[in-house]
Amino acid sequence: MGMFPAMAARCVIGVDVGGTKALAGTVGEDLAVHHRLQRPTQGQDTTALLDLLAEMVREAAEAAPGEVAGVGFGVPGVLDRRAGIVAACPHLPLEGVRFEALMAERLGLPVAIDNDGNCAMLAEWRHGAARGVDDALMVTVGTGIGGGIVAGGRLLRGATGGGAELGHIVVELEGPPCQGRCPGLGHWEWYASGSAVGRAGEELARSFPDSQLGAQLAAGRPITGALVTELAHDGDAAAAEALALVGRRLGKGLVSLVNVFNPERIIIGGGAIAAGEMLLGPARDVVAAEAMPSLREVAQIVPAHFGSDAGMLGAAALALEEHTR
Amino acid sequence: MGMFPAMAARCVIGVDVGGTKALAGTVGEDLAVHHRLQRPTQGQDTTALLDLLAEMVREAAEAAPGEVAGVGFGVPGVLDRRAGIVAACPHLPLEGVRFEALMAERLGLPVAIDNDGNCAMLAEWRHGAARGVDDALMVTVGTGIGGGIVAGGRLLRGATGGGAELGHIVVELEGPPCQGRCPGLGHWEWYASGSAVGRAGEELARSFPDSQLGAQLAAGRPITGALVTELAHDGDAAAAEALALVGRRLGKGLVSLVNVFNPERIIIGGGAIAAGEMLLGPARDVVAAEAMPSLREVAQIVPAHFGSDAGMLGAAALALEEHTR
Repeated sequence: MGMFPAMAARCVIGVDVGGTKALAGTVGEDLAVHHRLQRPTQGQDTTALLDLLAEMVREAAEAAPGEVAGVGFGVPGVLDRRAGIVAACPHLPLEGVRFEALMAERLGLPVAIDNDGNCAMLAEWRHGAARGVDDALMVTVGTGIGGGIVAGGRLLRGATGGGAELGHIVVELEGPPCQGRCPGLGHWEWYASGSAVGRAGEELARSFPDSQLGAQLAAGRPITGALVTELAHDGDAAAAEALALVGRRLGKGLVSLVNVFNPERIIIGGGAIAAGEMLLGPARDVVAAEAMPSLREVAQIVPAHFGSDAGMLGAAALALEEHTR
Repeated sequence: MGMFPAMAARCVIGVDVGGTKALAGTVGEDLAVHHRLQRPTQGQDTTALLDLLAEMVREAAEAAPGEVAGVGFGVPGVLDRRAGIVAACPHLPLEGVRFEALMAERLGLPVAIDNDGNCAMLAEWRHGAARGVDDALMVTVGTGIGGGIVAGGRLLRGATGGGAELGHIVVELEGPPCQGRCPGLGHWEWYASGSAVGRAGEELARSFPDSQLGAQLAAGRPITGALVTELAHDGDAAAAEALALVGRRLGKGLVSLVNVFNPERIIIGGGAIAAGEMLLGPARDVVAAEAMPSLREVAQIVPAHFGSDAGMLGAAALALEEHTR
């Protein structure tokens, strides 16, 4: 075909379909964002949601500097690629929906889809904190724990495209039931997510009523992960201990992942990394003490390079890989 | 090169280097075993062990019907392929040893090496219970729990070749320390290995002194996994309950693996599968109840096709893949 000017301007559209909002970006081959737009997604039925997403893609396409080679979607659910559906999707009415086919129909463009954790992994792998590495993990610590896996230089997707549900590993044999639609007990995300920081904070607020955290609880303020993190940054010891406790439990799951995947890099992303080293430090300490020596030596645990754009950029990277190569 | 008669007779030698004995086999391209030999490995120093293994290979080579294309070794330890050494090896004096290079030197033949769990996975994948499947796991339930992983049609080895230590995933945040050289706490193999069957059996023998299991304990007989299994087959309810308890805990780890790998098949091997459905049934029940619905639906949990030959045959399969293709 040869080279011609349009090549350089070719781009894709990445869409991070979140439970509360969708973020779309017009993205170049270097993952530079030319244009972005955001819309709320809550309270829509399936058809309205698909229409909204199609509308967002059309608007993003209008802002494209050149040919749009394809569209990538990151979806907060478990895919079933054999059936061509989203098999589980706790926060959006996409369960059982032939998402990829329906969006391709609506858009008349090549469509690629993956789980949001895999998308974040892809963005970090191609252009972020896992660049140049063949074995890496993405652990997204937010309301729950999401994940993505690169093994032997490829995204690990599993038999039906539903793998890498890293938050749903058992860390307590008889632990409490999982939130959302997971039927599991004692899963990692119960103990080590942003929500877990809130729960740990509430317990410590009760134990230490004289702390700032205790005062906030007494004042009737809901103890969230964000509040705990803020107070810990302000120097409150009870809040810092809540982060350290959850950080150690984060480390316990990382021990499993280090022993199983022998990764070179583990990227920690999601809202909870606002706590920085107060969360990551204790997690690293547990890995340094409890993972297998020759495996922990090569496993760097680092914060994500991309923040809230990771899902959108990863969806764009997915479209680039599937539709421009 | 064309085809010539010697091609058909070409073979490899597979060696399963176990902590108590080594098993070597002269193996054809179809994994048929032409000749086999076994030697004790305990109590040897490093040089004596390497010499013994070289001697076994030479004897196996003499029995070969044609050209020996290479030798594969399965080693019960954690490899570090970057350093070219066995990084950890609790039961044999191979820690820090440049095993592959030293054996190639001694033998003058192409040598391939992998962890014994990966070898068993490879045998089952190429010729056994995971044949034709791109996403599979091998869980070897013996004294500990070993593992192997096929993801996306390839063996998962990790950054330095030390991955797939499936027995060393955390299933209790504050569990007891691991056996051997692993610095971990609350790992799966403590709760769900053959040794765990023995421990569970001893507890149940105390709780039910009138059971056959209780009688054996009272008679001073050590309560091993093998004894518990034998008594359970004889119909002793206490022994059966010990197997069911460990089976459920086996299931807990399988839930993690199903949610992370989305495998199509999980092969359970090792000595503990002598307990058959008394162990596997409860494990399957836990997965059916607690793993993510769309993932557990595709994950078949089946007994291994190969018994005690799995490691040797897998080492041979490794040599075939690395040295005849």
